[in-house]
Amino acid sequence: MTAYSDLMAFQRDTEALGQIAGRLGWDQETMMPRGAADQRGDETGAIEGILHARRTDPRIGEWLEAAEPQDEVERAQLRHIRRTYEKQTRIPAALATEIARVTSVAQGVWAGARRAEKVADFLPTLARVVALKREEAAALAGNGDLYDALLDNYEPGATAESIGAMFDRLRPRLVALADRILGAPKPAALTGQFPADGQMRVTRDLAQAFGYDWNRGRLDLAVHPFSSGSGNDVRITTRVVEEEPFNCFYSTIHETGHACYEQAIDQAYLLTPLGNGVSMGVHESQSRIYENQMGRSRPFTGWLFGRMQAEFGALSVRDADAFHAAVNRVQPGYIRTEADEVHYNLHVMLRFDLERQLIGGALEVADLEAAWNARFLKDFGAAVDRPSHGVLQDVHWSVGLFGYFPTYSLGNVYAGCLNQAMRAAVPGIDAGLARGDASAATGWLRQNLQRHGGLYEPGEVVARACGFAPSEGPLLDYLEAKFAEIYRL
Amino acid sequence: MTAYSDLMAFQRDTEALGQIAGRLGWDQETMMPRGAADQRGDETGAIEGILHARRTDPRIGEWLEAAEPQDEVERAQLRHIRRTYEKQTRIPAALATEIARVTSVAQGVWAGARRAEKVADFLPTLARVVALKREEAAALAGNGDLYDALLDNYEPGATAESIGAMFDRLRPRLVALADRILGAPKPAALTGQFPADGQMRVTRDLAQAFGYDWNRGRLDLAVHPFSSGSGNDVRITTRVVEEEPFNCFYSTIHETGHACYEQAIDQAYLLTPLGNGVSMGVHESQSRIYENQMGRSRPFTGWLFGRMQAEFGALSVRDADAFHAAVNRVQPGYIRTEADEVHYNLHVMLRFDLERQLIGGALEVADLEAAWNARFLKDFGAAVDRPSHGVLQDVHWSVGLFGYFPTYSLGNVYAGCLNQAMRAAVPGIDAGLARGDASAATGWLRQNLQRHGGLYEPGEVVARACGFAPSEGPLLDYLEAKFAEIYRL
Repeated sequence: MTAYSDLMAFQRDTEALGQIAGRLGWDQETMMPRGAADQRGDETGAIEGILHARRTDPRIGEWLEAAEPQDEVERAQLRHIRRTYEKQTRIPAALATEIARVTSVAQGVWAGARRAEKVADFLPTLARVVALKREEAAALAGNGDLYDALLDNYEPGATAESIGAMFDRLRPRLVALADRILGAPKPAALTGQFPADGQMRVTRDLAQAFGYDWNRGRLDLAVHPFSSGSGNDVRITTRVVEEEPFNCFYSTIHETGHACYEQAIDQAYLLTPLGNGVSMGVHESQSRIYENQMGRSRPFTGWLFGRMQAEFGALSVRDADAFHAAVNRVQPGYIRTEADEVHYNLHVMLRFDLERQLIGGALEVADLEAAWNARFLKDFGAAVDRPSHGVLQDVHWSVGLFGYFPTYSLGNVYAGCLNQAMRAAVPGIDAGLARGDASAATGWLRQNLQRHGGLYEPGEVVARACGFAPSEGPLLDYLEAKFAEIYRL
Repeated sequence: MTAYSDLMAFQRDTEALGQIAGRLGWDQETMMPRGAADQRGDETGAIEGILHARRTDPRIGEWLEAAEPQDEVERAQLRHIRRTYEKQTRIPAALATEIARVTSVAQGVWAGARRAEKVADFLPTLARVVALKREEAAALAGNGDLYDALLDNYEPGATAESIGAMFDRLRPRLVALADRILGAPKPAALTGQFPADGQMRVTRDLAQAFGYDWNRGRLDLAVHPFSSGSGNDVRITTRVVEEEPFNCFYSTIHETGHACYEQAIDQAYLLTPLGNGVSMGVHESQSRIYENQMGRSRPFTGWLFGRMQAEFGALSVRDADAFHAAVNRVQPGYIRTEADEVHYNLHVMLRFDLERQLIGGALEVADLEAAWNARFLKDFGAAVDRPSHGVLQDVHWSVGLFGYFPTYSLGNVYAGCLNQAMRAAVPGIDAGLARGDASAATGWLRQNLQRHGGLYEPGEVVARACGFAPSEGPLLDYLEAKFAEIYRL
């Protein structure tokens, strides 16, 4: 045995245990009886403790030193293992334990405060989380930027500066586009009641249309839809609201995008560090290109219009064009997760600026709500009417996810690039989508991006797929063209 | 910290990881996509490896030596930990790994041979399993009996001699009873089609009637029904065959008995060695007393008759008496799991004698099928017509469960004792059952047996509940009285 093979054998069991921990999370959100919550906390703590001990096992340091990678794949495996090992060993064990303890409680505190619409109930807990995450960032950053150190956990290589510059270029054209759209006549929304069982039949067809492999996955209900797992057990969830079928359908397509990425990764990487999507940004590029550039395209909504008529009878919108406009209605709103394609990134920018200030120390938690509300009024032209529509709407900060939000926008930007490259390379994508068949597009994505898993760095894998360095230009071009047509701008 | 508290903290995480491994098994049988099977094998191997390492951790030996238990509970905790530690450390690591590897493959080989009705396909694998289990038994037994060493894994304290003696006393009265019954006119079976959704509604009512706590459990479908988990997450499964509603209903009541035992254990024992049912025999006593002494009693079948009429309309049997007789139809058959109360233990005796000979070396695997068929003809008066009705019907041997079968009969014997004691102690049990309410009986079982978990040894906890040493007499008295009435003997 060589150091490399010893290390990989050890890592393989760690990856397998990580999959188990992930499936335990899936169970918690889909299957677990309510009364099991406390016991589950102990179970989760036990397996997370095992995982932490393995990820900081000193033998990893020795193996890394002695390992002699033979090719690009082995070098990439070691790069991932080294990155995780260095991060995990830099964080003192007592701090890691305290963060785990505080954030596990904080989520419940946040949920209670949100239900009660009382920001003050959450602030002491949030202040503690921020303080701990600043400590973590300091441990990780060395002499570097605190926020960058956290961002790097989700998007290796990205920096606050590069993200900030990207947002500076995105903002003016998005704002201008939103202004033009909101000055135009508003298309009608789809109204009516859509029974749950019919929505579930349609939504299964949607996952199918986008190439989800049912033999290696399943679909269940969850309060907040998510996808979970890697390799040959990748599960998706959706939700059903009888008045809002697009909520169910586009959640499903979004999670199908995430899941198809995981399912498509080269089987040779199974249960290794390369066997996962490479970053949150690249992951989000897949969910968003499935959901938006394909799922909300005119050809595909044409097919969905027919499918919904077949399932539910006559709809409130008269034809495929009106249906396409209803799917793509643009309107400012309080909630990020319900935002249209034009406003979505403005929600992210707000969070990015505020969380950067929180971690950097330029904003106190006590002043967060006022800062949020002032910024929202400025960006969206409306006063936040309640905390659950404002600073309390997202779970992220309560569980310590600082530096995560910008990966959503990176995903949108990458999706814009990939869409441009894919449409230049592959004929017949729209013809397929019009038949409810996305395989031409998903085949290209699988071949050019998804199968690589963690082999290349995030920016690199997108650039290799596209043939050009990713930028926000293609996304903006796509949005301007799409909405000019729908709104006759 | 004392040695005792250090040990218990370590043990608590081991128990939590054991619960996770158990839930992974539940997922595999109820939720897992088919294509995930190989990956799941790696995941299961990883967590079982962690569990084995923890159960043989040398620190346990040191803690056990230094620990000073303060009371009966602490003494019992240490007894369980010591027993497991001594067993696990006696088995060489290489042997444990080889058994895990061979039995994980053997189950698939067995299933294939059963499907193909080809005993020869299974025999080489079975021979390997038997050889490995004999090695394991030799490692565990020291100078003692090989079969006893395996039996002790499932029923601490039981011996082949005591079980054999019990069977010698059971057999003549069971055979005589079966003969008398088979000479009497046979009651009509329930026939008809019972739609799956209706069966599931009734079966949920049955779990409810027997006190299953839905807040800490759930019901799903599985090919072979089982219950799973301890403490506050105890799940049950059932199956539905549209022509055989009793298959679904009595599987559910059986698994509810197992699950209620786990749910009722003192919460102070959660995630400790005392927080599980104390043995397979005592566990089976709970599933069987729920299923048979309560579920197949005249008062309860009277309620079920009404419930089924309400769900399915008129039934093929004319009244509650005929329904009771249909539920309790006695007829010899090939399959243990479908056997009536009179024949069930005869199936177990056959397996006990054969597996004792296999482990003792008196019977070769090559001669097993012939021995099975000869014995079946002698005991049941019929020739086995195919291997899946004979030696290939049970999964147990393929996965190395030698010494497990007799715990089923022990459970029946214990159930007989508990039923006698419970009915002497509690008035109104039958009146409750006639209303579909088993709470008077289940309350007594919870208070006198279930809550203790692993506090007392198996025979002791039954004796304490009953007020007398368990024997087969009460079971035989119960069976003779019940079937004399139904069959007018």
